[in-house]
Amino acid sequence: MRKRHLFTPGPVDVPPEVLSALAEPLIHHRAPDFIPYFKAANEGLKYVFQTQNPVVTFAGSGTAAMEAAVANTLSPGDRAITVEGGKFGERWTELCKAYGVEPIVLKIEWGKAVTPEQIEEALTGNPDVKAVFLTLTETSTGVLTDVESICEIVAKTDAISVVDAVSALAAEKLLTDAWKVDIVVAGSQKALMLPPGLAFCSVSAKAQAAIARSKCPKYYLSLAKAIKKLEKDDTPYTPAVSLIRALVVAAKMIRDEGIENVWARHARLGRALREAAVAMNLSVFAQNPSNVVTAIRIPDGVDGEKIPKILRDKHGVTIAGGQEQLKGKVIRIATLGWANDLDVFAVIGALDLTLAEMGHKFERGAGLAAAARALSA
Amino acid sequence: MRKRHLFTPGPVDVPPEVLSALAEPLIHHRAPDFIPYFKAANEGLKYVFQTQNPVVTFAGSGTAAMEAAVANTLSPGDRAITVEGGKFGERWTELCKAYGVEPIVLKIEWGKAVTPEQIEEALTGNPDVKAVFLTLTETSTGVLTDVESICEIVAKTDAISVVDAVSALAAEKLLTDAWKVDIVVAGSQKALMLPPGLAFCSVSAKAQAAIARSKCPKYYLSLAKAIKKLEKDDTPYTPAVSLIRALVVAAKMIRDEGIENVWARHARLGRALREAAVAMNLSVFAQNPSNVVTAIRIPDGVDGEKIPKILRDKHGVTIAGGQEQLKGKVIRIATLGWANDLDVFAVIGALDLTLAEMGHKFERGAGLAAAARALSA
Repeated sequence: MRKRHLFTPGPVDVPPEVLSALAEPLIHHRAPDFIPYFKAANEGLKYVFQTQNPVVTFAGSGTAAMEAAVANTLSPGDRAITVEGGKFGERWTELCKAYGVEPIVLKIEWGKAVTPEQIEEALTGNPDVKAVFLTLTETSTGVLTDVESICEIVAKTDAISVVDAVSALAAEKLLTDAWKVDIVVAGSQKALMLPPGLAFCSVSAKAQAAIARSKCPKYYLSLAKAIKKLEKDDTPYTPAVSLIRALVVAAKMIRDEGIENVWARHARLGRALREAAVAMNLSVFAQNPSNVVTAIRIPDGVDGEKIPKILRDKHGVTIAGGQEQLKGKVIRIATLGWANDLDVFAVIGALDLTLAEMGHKFERGAGLAAAARALSA
Repeated sequence: MRKRHLFTPGPVDVPPEVLSALAEPLIHHRAPDFIPYFKAANEGLKYVFQTQNPVVTFAGSGTAAMEAAVANTLSPGDRAITVEGGKFGERWTELCKAYGVEPIVLKIEWGKAVTPEQIEEALTGNPDVKAVFLTLTETSTGVLTDVESICEIVAKTDAISVVDAVSALAAEKLLTDAWKVDIVVAGSQKALMLPPGLAFCSVSAKAQAAIARSKCPKYYLSLAKAIKKLEKDDTPYTPAVSLIRALVVAAKMIRDEGIENVWARHARLGRALREAAVAMNLSVFAQNPSNVVTAIRIPDGVDGEKIPKILRDKHGVTIAGGQEQLKGKVIRIATLGWANDLDVFAVIGALDLTLAEMGHKFERGAGLAAAARALSA
């Protein structure tokens, strides 16, 4: 008997109601049977994104939607600002380079967030910049970026703002329209509580104007084609029918709870994780921590690569280790999507057992007690 | 009580065993839990493709894999042969143009297949051609192309052969290695008996050499990155975990039946459909018909657009109508994947009821009788 728990920043444990929807018989995507599902999915996405902009769904990983944001809005020779404070910020730089776009890279120490002032300075110094690429929550470091303030600054320029919310959507507060975010990119396997396989782009009017000017090659990931079809409740290419029907169920669960309550729940669980970590004689890596994933610094002398292995093999708990320069130095724990107070006790309890086994010095049970206090606050 | 049947060239009815796999709890894609599934899926694909080449899986529609074949092997200014004898052949031309590749277009009358001689002539006249793009079964017309003979010709040149087998894989005979096909592109929602959402590319050594020279931009669809990761049973980006686990089940079903038997079953059902059509005073549109989808010409005076609607609304049967220049002029019926003799009786029976209602002149039951005779042969 093996009971498994996913505490990774995607894939996440998927609620049984959503899994059941995946097992429903197939229907044809260009038939009246499918259209109500597609409409409901799209309405649900607009609610979760807090936008009136069209939200395009691709069959693909989150990276496909990131690529769509670059290839559809820019042209070779254009310049764009990227922020490298983690692995996913670096992906924006790589994507720009792949399409002949010159990235103006703001290097940020891992664990810190780019500031609105830094973006403003870069924009003032480079008035020809066509786009600013941001990461709402950097999954490799657990850092939250102040996208609200930054997009307010970008909105005053001719550049568009593009926000990677692949791990953040429905976990961290994001008001696409109120914050004037031109493109929000997201994926299905995070707080949307679905398996991986769908990727999303919301596209503002300003971004659509940029799309009309763009000369980068694109075909499958064409946002212009997808938006045109979306107006007729259709897609340019065969959609991932089963995942879209599951999205209807998941989006309804989010709507029933209320997006503000969903954000508040993630904030509550994230805070409890952070306070538990500190109580266990560990520390939180990010200076401006997100509620999506908590990167916990592992002290020298404790093998940070071994912790996820013991958690997995002995306790059925999957968390993430550190990536690249943080390999072995942090562990990353996410309580994303279908997660509640009891899940915090489960993962912190498993961590207590594991750290004790590894000889880490801490007061046994202190993490669980700290979590309990944080969850009562 | 509504019993539904999909007779479209994708999506198809998915076997309950495969649907059940979709509903299993999620597992993490970079963990030992997932690796055995990923290995089994990849072994299954090699068997279905009849290849020892790596077969890359993307989260995406079939078109994504078609785009990968173009963007990864060619450079702007290159020339390539495309064959326009239907909507999907035209997609190769569009993809080439999107990437600045000059297509040498062989226009073929819809309903006919390009001949090996035509390809040979085009190659001789254009010795600088870098790739020949083919469509094994053209879903818009029901035509089967002699890919075996054509790829034999292409193999003698420096060009690579690229075959769209999106609708054909596991339905129509295809020996990737024996026929020297450099890239085979396929999708999940056809005879592989899965929902849409996965796309595949098999890549020969000759194609990998072309990939090393290619200068088109690509990132998410990079075949080089995917092949490198595949060697370590990994993927560059989050794979569609649930669909891949379902693929393991579907591929095992195909292996248990035997791929030759699967092809023979499709041939048997396709022949029965064609003979039934003729017996119902209709005719088969394609001169060289495939067993993937049967395009049936609708006589003047019968509204070809109404037939799919009546079939769907009265009988729960979804078939496809004609596309573009064939709109209203043909209906298209597929018995793909999880289909047997009885499914032929179901769809031909429903067509008998529908054509009678519409006033088409034919001997009632003659189609069913012809199907029965064909299935006994």
